[in-house]
Amino acid sequence: MRYSVLTLFPDAVLPYTHTSIVGKACDKGLITVEAINPRDFTANKHRKVDDTPYGGGPGMVMAAQPLVDAYESLLALAEPSITLLTSPGGRPLTDGWARKLASLQHIVILCGHYEGMDARVHDCIPNVHEVSIGDFVLTGGELAALCVIDAVSRFIPGVVQKTESVDGDSHSATDIYPKGLLEHPHYTRPETFRGYPVPEVLLSGNHAAIAAWRHQQALDKTRRIRPDLLP
Amino acid sequence: MRYSVLTLFPDAVLPYTHTSIVGKACDKGLITVEAINPRDFTANKHRKVDDTPYGGGPGMVMAAQPLVDAYESLLALAEPSITLLTSPGGRPLTDGWARKLASLQHIVILCGHYEGMDARVHDCIPNVHEVSIGDFVLTGGELAALCVIDAVSRFIPGVVQKTESVDGDSHSATDIYPKGLLEHPHYTRPETFRGYPVPEVLLSGNHAAIAAWRHQQALDKTRRIRPDLLP
Repeated sequence: MRYSVLTLFPDAVLPYTHTSIVGKACDKGLITVEAINPRDFTANKHRKVDDTPYGGGPGMVMAAQPLVDAYESLLALAEPSITLLTSPGGRPLTDGWARKLASLQHIVILCGHYEGMDARVHDCIPNVHEVSIGDFVLTGGELAALCVIDAVSRFIPGVVQKTESVDGDSHSATDIYPKGLLEHPHYTRPETFRGYPVPEVLLSGNHAAIAAWRHQQALDKTRRIRPDLLP
Repeated sequence: MRYSVLTLFPDAVLPYTHTSIVGKACDKGLITVEAINPRDFTANKHRKVDDTPYGGGPGMVMAAQPLVDAYESLLALAEPSITLLTSPGGRPLTDGWARKLASLQHIVILCGHYEGMDARVHDCIPNVHEVSIGDFVLTGGELAALCVIDAVSRFIPGVVQKTESVDGDSHSATDIYPKGLLEHPHYTRPETFRGYPVPEVLLSGNHAAIAAWRHQQALDKTRRIRPDLLP
């Protein structure tokens, strides 16, 4: 998978891609992440990338020209599979969507900044989808782009060691719970920590009882915290 | 505001905090971000921080001891205001919650990794709240911690230049739309870009008409993409 991130702040994107599991996936050649700075594509002599909004209002708006030209610099080889635009007004990223995106070849991510982008990027760049990581606002789209890269890459074979680990996680869809359940609690050694014992069933060796306990815990937690996920 | 991030991967957290608006907020002394590595608090000679789960299953679980001891190293001065634990099974971060968190003095964030954490951290650390940034799973909690820091810091006076910019954004609650609306589209120079003109109303100078157009656009977009936000 190739990720091309269009961002005014490459330093906010690249260091993370050298760390942890995403870093290892890059080292193994399973994914590549590049940052392209629209500022390098400005047509004006001051290298300005933003301007005041038509109609007035606070803040600055990213101009369409540097973004569209930066995007088009990627077209020499082949059309990207999809272009995502990070925005709190976009379609929420879900585990199911991340899984689908993982089957693509090349994802372009445009990072919003300042008050937002000139809406005409939608007219000039084909197949743009706004994506939101949650109902909160960030100072820029870079963290959202990294969340997309991280959440999608988990589904690329070889990135996470055991695929079981991916399938049993929170928000994994099943036939009965299409939106998934929150994950059951975990325990590891020691058997008693500061006076708190591990639940007895987990020490029983009874796999059916353990599975039933975990399912009940997952269901209880989902009911308590996220009843909206239940069918 | 002081943020203390407990993470096995400080390199996945710290570089971002030196960039962009969050970096400037650090430079101005409006916020501080420190990373504490639970690995430095392991009580075993191999500095192991994880182990296999009781009851079986894939993946590894973060042990409670290094996390709890790392947390307690912070208590010398004063009890933190709140401790957040990043988890896809947590309460979703919202703009409203971020705004409330911004009034606190000291936020501790525990970053989940591997299959999750030993559930007894909830027994041993007071006032722990699980927080989720969305219905997807990350390879670790570091990006979620950064999203919390970024989204919360926006509400700290002086971090974002104009408070108007914060109040008019997507997901800002109003009396009529308590969950907020998605933001209206933005346009900036030039007036025509690649044949696409700016909507005429934005050039009219008629402030009431502009406000009405923007509100209608925000409402239409919310209805189309996020009907769940409407009352």
